[in-house]
Amino acid sequence: MSSFGTLFKVSTFGESHGVGVGCIVDGLPANLPLTEEDVQPQLTRRRPGQSSLTTARNEADTVTILSGTEGGLTLGTPIAMMVKNQDQRKFDYANTSSAPRPGHADYTYQVKYGTRASSGGGRASARETIGRVAAGAVAEKWLQMEHKTMISCWVSSIMDIDLPKDVALALESDPPTRKEIDDFGTLAEDEENGFFIDMNGQKYSRKDGEALAPASAPKGKSFEEGKKLYTRCPHPPTAARMAARIQQLREEQDSTGGVVTTVVSGMPVGLGEPCFDKFEAELAKAMLSLPATKAFEIGDGFAACRARGSKNNDLFVKGSDGLLKCKTNHAGGTLGGITSGEMLVFRVGIKPASSISQDQETCTFDGEPHVLAVKGRHDPCVLPRAPPLVEGMTAMVLMDAVLRQRARSGAVCKTLGELGAGEGKAARAVAEPPYKVPKSE
Amino acid sequence: MSSFGTLFKVSTFGESHGVGVGCIVDGLPANLPLTEEDVQPQLTRRRPGQSSLTTARNEADTVTILSGTEGGLTLGTPIAMMVKNQDQRKFDYANTSSAPRPGHADYTYQVKYGTRASSGGGRASARETIGRVAAGAVAEKWLQMEHKTMISCWVSSIMDIDLPKDVALALESDPPTRKEIDDFGTLAEDEENGFFIDMNGQKYSRKDGEALAPASAPKGKSFEEGKKLYTRCPHPPTAARMAARIQQLREEQDSTGGVVTTVVSGMPVGLGEPCFDKFEAELAKAMLSLPATKAFEIGDGFAACRARGSKNNDLFVKGSDGLLKCKTNHAGGTLGGITSGEMLVFRVGIKPASSISQDQETCTFDGEPHVLAVKGRHDPCVLPRAPPLVEGMTAMVLMDAVLRQRARSGAVCKTLGELGAGEGKAARAVAEPPYKVPKSE
Amino acid sequence: MSSFGTLFKVSTFGESHGVGVGCIVDGLPANLPLTEEDVQPQLTRRRPGQSSLTTARNEADTVTILSGTEGGLTLGTPIAMMVKNQDQRKFDYANTSSAPRPGHADYTYQVKYGTRASSGGGRASARETIGRVAAGAVAEKWLQMEHKTMISCWVSSIMDIDLPKDVALALESDPPTRKEIDDFGTLAEDEENGFFIDMNGQKYSRKDGEALAPASAPKGKSFEEGKKLYTRCPHPPTAARMAARIQQLREEQDSTGGVVTTVVSGMPVGLGEPCFDKFEAELAKAMLSLPATKAFEIGDGFAACRARGSKNNDLFVKGSDGLLKCKTNHAGGTLGGITSGEMLVFRVGIKPASSISQDQETCTFDGEPHVLAVKGRHDPCVLPRAPPLVEGMTAMVLMDAVLRQRARSGAVCKTLGELGAGEGKAARAVAEPPYKVPKSE
Amino acid sequence: MSSFGTLFKVSTFGESHGVGVGCIVDGLPANLPLTEEDVQPQLTRRRPGQSSLTTARNEADTVTILSGTEGGLTLGTPIAMMVKNQDQRKFDYANTSSAPRPGHADYTYQVKYGTRASSGGGRASARETIGRVAAGAVAEKWLQMEHKTMISCWVSSIMDIDLPKDVALALESDPPTRKEIDDFGTLAEDEENGFFIDMNGQKYSRKDGEALAPASAPKGKSFEEGKKLYTRCPHPPTAARMAARIQQLREEQDSTGGVVTTVVSGMPVGLGEPCFDKFEAELAKAMLSLPATKAFEIGDGFAACRARGSKNNDLFVKGSDGLLKCKTNHAGGTLGGITSGEMLVFRVGIKPASSISQDQETCTFDGEPHVLAVKGRHDPCVLPRAPPLVEGMTAMVLMDAVLRQRARSGAVCKTLGELGAGEGKAARAVAEPPYKVPKSE
Repeated sequence: MSSFGTLFKVSTFGESHGVGVGCIVDGLPANLPLTEEDVQPQLTRRRPGQSSLTTARNEADTVTILSGTEGGLTLGTPIAMMVKNQDQRKFDYANTSSAPRPGHADYTYQVKYGTRASSGGGRASARETIGRVAAGAVAEKWLQMEHKTMISCWVSSIMDIDLPKDVALALESDPPTRKEIDDFGTLAEDEENGFFIDMNGQKYSRKDGEALAPASAPKGKSFEEGKKLYTRCPHPPTAARMAARIQQLREEQDSTGGVVTTVVSGMPVGLGEPCFDKFEAELAKAMLSLPATKAFEIGDGFAACRARGSKNNDLFVKGSDGLLKCKTNHAGGTLGGITSGEMLVFRVGIKPASSISQDQETCTFDGEPHVLAVKGRHDPCVLPRAPPLVEGMTAMVLMDAVLRQRARSGAVCKTLGELGAGEGKAARAVAEPPYKVPKSE
Repeated sequence: MSSFGTLFKVSTFGESHGVGVGCIVDGLPANLPLTEEDVQPQLTRRRPGQSSLTTARNEADTVTILSGTEGGLTLGTPIAMMVKNQDQRKFDYANTSSAPRPGHADYTYQVKYGTRASSGGGRASARETIGRVAAGAVAEKWLQMEHKTMISCWVSSIMDIDLPKDVALALESDPPTRKEIDDFGTLAEDEENGFFIDMNGQKYSRKDGEALAPASAPKGKSFEEGKKLYTRCPHPPTAARMAARIQQLREEQDSTGGVVTTVVSGMPVGLGEPCFDKFEAELAKAMLSLPATKAFEIGDGFAACRARGSKNNDLFVKGSDGLLKCKTNHAGGTLGGITSGEMLVFRVGIKPASSISQDQETCTFDGEPHVLAVKGRHDPCVLPRAPPLVEGMTAMVLMDAVLRQRARSGAVCKTLGELGAGEGKAARAVAEPPYKVPKSE
Repeated sequence: MSSFGTLFKVSTFGESHGVGVGCIVDGLPANLPLTEEDVQPQLTRRRPGQSSLTTARNEADTVTILSGTEGGLTLGTPIAMMVKNQDQRKFDYANTSSAPRPGHADYTYQVKYGTRASSGGGRASARETIGRVAAGAVAEKWLQMEHKTMISCWVSSIMDIDLPKDVALALESDPPTRKEIDDFGTLAEDEENGFFIDMNGQKYSRKDGEALAPASAPKGKSFEEGKKLYTRCPHPPTAARMAARIQQLREEQDSTGGVVTTVVSGMPVGLGEPCFDKFEAELAKAMLSLPATKAFEIGDGFAACRARGSKNNDLFVKGSDGLLKCKTNHAGGTLGGITSGEMLVFRVGIKPASSISQDQETCTFDGEPHVLAVKGRHDPCVLPRAPPLVEGMTAMVLMDAVLRQRARSGAVCKTLGELGAGEGKAARAVAEPPYKVPKSE
Repeated sequence: MSSFGTLFKVSTFGESHGVGVGCIVDGLPANLPLTEEDVQPQLTRRRPGQSSLTTARNEADTVTILSGTEGGLTLGTPIAMMVKNQDQRKFDYANTSSAPRPGHADYTYQVKYGTRASSGGGRASARETIGRVAAGAVAEKWLQMEHKTMISCWVSSIMDIDLPKDVALALESDPPTRKEIDDFGTLAEDEENGFFIDMNGQKYSRKDGEALAPASAPKGKSFEEGKKLYTRCPHPPTAARMAARIQQLREEQDSTGGVVTTVVSGMPVGLGEPCFDKFEAELAKAMLSLPATKAFEIGDGFAACRARGSKNNDLFVKGSDGLLKCKTNHAGGTLGGITSGEMLVFRVGIKPASSISQDQETCTFDGEPHVLAVKGRHDPCVLPRAPPLVEGMTAMVLMDAVLRQRARSGAVCKTLGELGAGEGKAARAVAEPPYKVPKSE
């Protein structure tokens, strides 16, 4: 269905052709400071049309909070949020009414529902993820205030271009901030002179992404002047090679996929519910529920399957104040489905974008042979827009798990009879979360 | 929690030190023929102590149906099943009371619950999976009778030993039966004379698994006489190499992991609930909820992320009676989270067994340095016992999805194979409610 | 939480001070004709300000469908609906900021959440029910098209004014249509001349509701000219006495409660899930989740508890085509928690409106004595506005139960009325899965 | 389905003809002292065959805990419990195979499932409630230890015999203990001499329950000598009249129903989840899910509907330490669906027992006229056995609500980074509930 979570429950709605898309976030504790400004940045990072690396359709995607807050604070009641669809005209790609687009859900929606939205995917379109990103931003705000939890997601490979092994490991053990991912992953393009330039002024060949020696580099635009390309790969030399590969595929009317890596620091211990709702199980579901995802691994993942137990076991050492730490983190942050307090590390594989402009020899809904070319400007690679989606779903899984664990371990609700002299303040504190509550109340 | 599913709901219980382990299966339709004989075979395949490739503890694991049937038919009411624990003595491994075993859930259970079972894992032990396997066998029976659905899971790699590429592809497109997996994956060991022998009489070196030419092969036991080793890798030459690697690790007091591949044929179309309950999302959760799993991929998985869209898109052709087929199956059986009727293909990565007998330099619960060796006979590799677990969870996900889709369409879901001549219209009718649908669609 | 249902899932949002109120309806089958015109009538019936019998605040309450339809047909995807709040100014009743209003949820929300909406109730205000009514209207449309199900809810008592016993029984066995309830339950008031007049021209004393003989009746306005009072009690003489009681209470700055009776015809058989999700259990929950409800009974309810079994048992007789009927319907439509096909009959008790203008000697949130008078125009009795709420929740429970039962049987549930000649076997087939059933049964 | 609850989740299984009946209790916090002795007393109170007032079939109903505890403490993992069926022979009542018993679920189960248990009700039999009572006893134990919560349920009316108004009110405002209910509600019968005798030696006529003056009372058995009759009405004069009515009905081969009243003291504040999961909504569902229940009311219930708001509103006064109290408790313990800390007061109506030995003119499954008499010894009235069922469901609802509220308000889970010097103990305390934990851990 279109709902996710047990105690922190998110329900989403909306297709590209209707009035808007959005969500209801239920279960958010009261008194959390929350306005649209907490939500908009991730929607903006998600938005297509940010640069030539992503599709040129412009969607402003401005969010409105419809309910659940007063005076900038949450009430504990459902937060509804909506982003209006600016352009409600019907999906007008040629050929797609009679033939299902390969790689898309046109065919399966038709079989499942006996109908489908005429607007290029309906709920299967990327636009559906807006509600998730908005809800995730709310969860992230709460996690930051409660636990200083920080979620970082970056692009670690695109097609055959991978982060160098040592860089990948360094990033996983000391994750970059969201700002660092955006800054280091952004290139300026000077198409005319055939180069990219990173924020530090280093130039790279637009053809293959190789770094150009300052002496031999062509003159041209500065970083500020160039058209911005967002890769969200926080290692400029790799980002340049990725950008080159994407521009090449665009010219070839083709597409590709890649992998994003996510690291979460500030992880509460004890999250995850055995046996079926293990933390990594909920996380895997969340990730595979995102469009175009095909693979998930936690910690060393598939590589762990090739290791020896003597090397893969993470040995314990004394940690701070009664908790233990692990010397290594091959497990990626959980043991037996329960978080250990170590950083959460996982990767998600995303398939090549299905919409390509070149001819595809497929058939119509009736089985007649049909050559289909999906016209329009398509992203050759959606990876740079994936981090806000992955971060949002991660935050939703985490927050739900924290609330479930609190139910088990939490402070005692007081009854009238249990309250002795002087205990009143403590009793009231039960309903007062630890973040600051403005005095106006 | 210990429950799984929306309409086909399974709840499990039990640790190794209590009276027994088992499950309640709720939501199974009435009038299905069902006795213990439908459930026992998978429990027997799951059981440890089947051979020297798995741990020597002997657990008979005989299942009893406690409720929900009469005269060998289901009543539509909850099926409770139990397997008694034969040996309820406390877990007696040395050293584990004061120090959490690396790679195990001892530490995280203690932090989460403030206690833990003294019996080596409690709910985090492999014994928890008995309830799942029993429930899965029930679902499988129903799926076979309703849709002729067949679920095949085999070991495709152990540590560095992989099925050859061409064999792997051949198996995925024409999956072996469960009997074939058991037959071809079984070797007889003649430890004294240093060889394995497969069911066809071919001998392999016990040291490295290389095939021995009949001429040079040592004399010794026949297949019938040797101690049986079950690899559940249905390609004898690879199975022999896997068996050799496992025996080597056993001698080195070490362990390893691997990958299982699952293919489901007889897949009903239209299963999976957008957006959060996509079919592959539920499947990923199910797989990552199994002990020791670290990775999941559907279709080409991580390899798809390196492909071009023009190659990765599965083009459509006319199928049987009103449904379409795909020329290729890179997607692995779903599009947009909904099953397409193609075979479901996915892989699960399993980490090295955490229990190893060699010394590990870790610490106690109090943070004091401690050298821990987990005494006892341990499986160096649990992969050969994994298929019944994966098959069980797959069946549970599938059956729940079928019931959810039936609720929508009020008719029996059809598979590609079930559609005979003239039934095409009926198949399409699945998605068409009885009220009139305007023609404009 | 703010979600209801298993397969037909409704999530609501909104307070009176925010942008709007509304809901997401998930699980509605595709291809159902649906526009705002299907939803608006019930919202209009729910609306305050319909007459002097209800509060004078004017809320237009116009619904907009935000998603889930195209070309007037549902897509199978979530239907989001919203009603904008026209007047978002803060709740300005005096005295209520420092003292919790007796009978309201001010105090309990404050204790539960550590905050509360400043707008007179927030989610505990009647405005919350708009989302339910909208969602219920959608379910009702589907039930009508699928099963010709008809839900009738009317006011059967207000304070001490009850429908005469024989009239009550007659209505329960031959339920009035919604139009009849509205028509017969509407009076025109001529305050100046002290009378009410029903749609047939009969006049009643405004003081006590007694019928006035045509000869002695005062001259004055006609039915068309008078201010309309809606009682939703479809028996004009009783309606007049109820209206008189309400006007009296208004003048006395007091309030009261009453009982609504609901009858559903066109009931599919076999609905309800033993053991915890019995049909009447889900219904009771739905009713007690409505604001101000205090009591629920099905069939003869509390009166049945005083009967003898020999009289209370409903004996069976041959019904149509393979189904049975009951000679009586003391049970109210279910047996063992499962619907029998008989008409569903239940009653809901609603407490006196909590907002009254007279002084109440209560205390502040800090426990200081405080005389509180809730200023403003208040409904002395909310009963006339209750039917759309009860109908909506009834439809939601019914539709969810139908979908759950369809999942089991893979076919359309039948009602007694839908069964024509020769269809009996098909009806029985509902419960018979396609696999062979041994004859011994 | 057969599961109940969100965080405290109970799943039940079993029919009378199978191996046994029981439940899985999931979500119970760890370290709670728990053995079979905590559960057995309520099962014994539920058991039929306690006296001549209830059916004579003897069911020992001894419970076994199958999992989830160690050393008498809970592990936080699922508690499975089972009661074996001692007598598994098929249900042998005459006539019931061809004709559905009126008032029973034979017909609706047959229609719903296409089959039914041959054993007189299957899951619709009273035996199904054993799992609920066992699970409820576990919840009650936890509530008592955490909140000193006390749940008292007694029989307040049987057929036309009601507790006197003033006694009823006194009991509701100062509820009797369970022991008092059992003691005062027990009579000894001296059939030969035609009297009942209460625990204090007062005699009552067996014919009409009227108190006999010591002078005129017949000689005969003492309280200790007589056959015990349990009414669970803690007012001996009323209990005697009830007992007389039941004995009369038994002789007339008839049956009747009645009402139980429940009061809970030690109520935590802030429980209940708006809007759909209001506390009284969950409670109403729980009660109507019990077999034979037809009505539910909270606080003044249907009587409140006849009151004026000025009288029905409960005014606030200063309570203890920062919480408020109500001067009256017409509401019955909730406001806006959230508990206020006042005592919870509610009543449940139970219909006449459906099994009666006299002839009933009904029809067969095929619609043929049939005179059916349900042979065997039947309870003329199940009310005396109802309290443990109602108490059990009440405890389940309460505990689930407490856990859900804790999730919202609970103590903060700590991360490694958040832990400063000296905070370790507090951090660990998160996982340690306030009840004492034995040192052996």
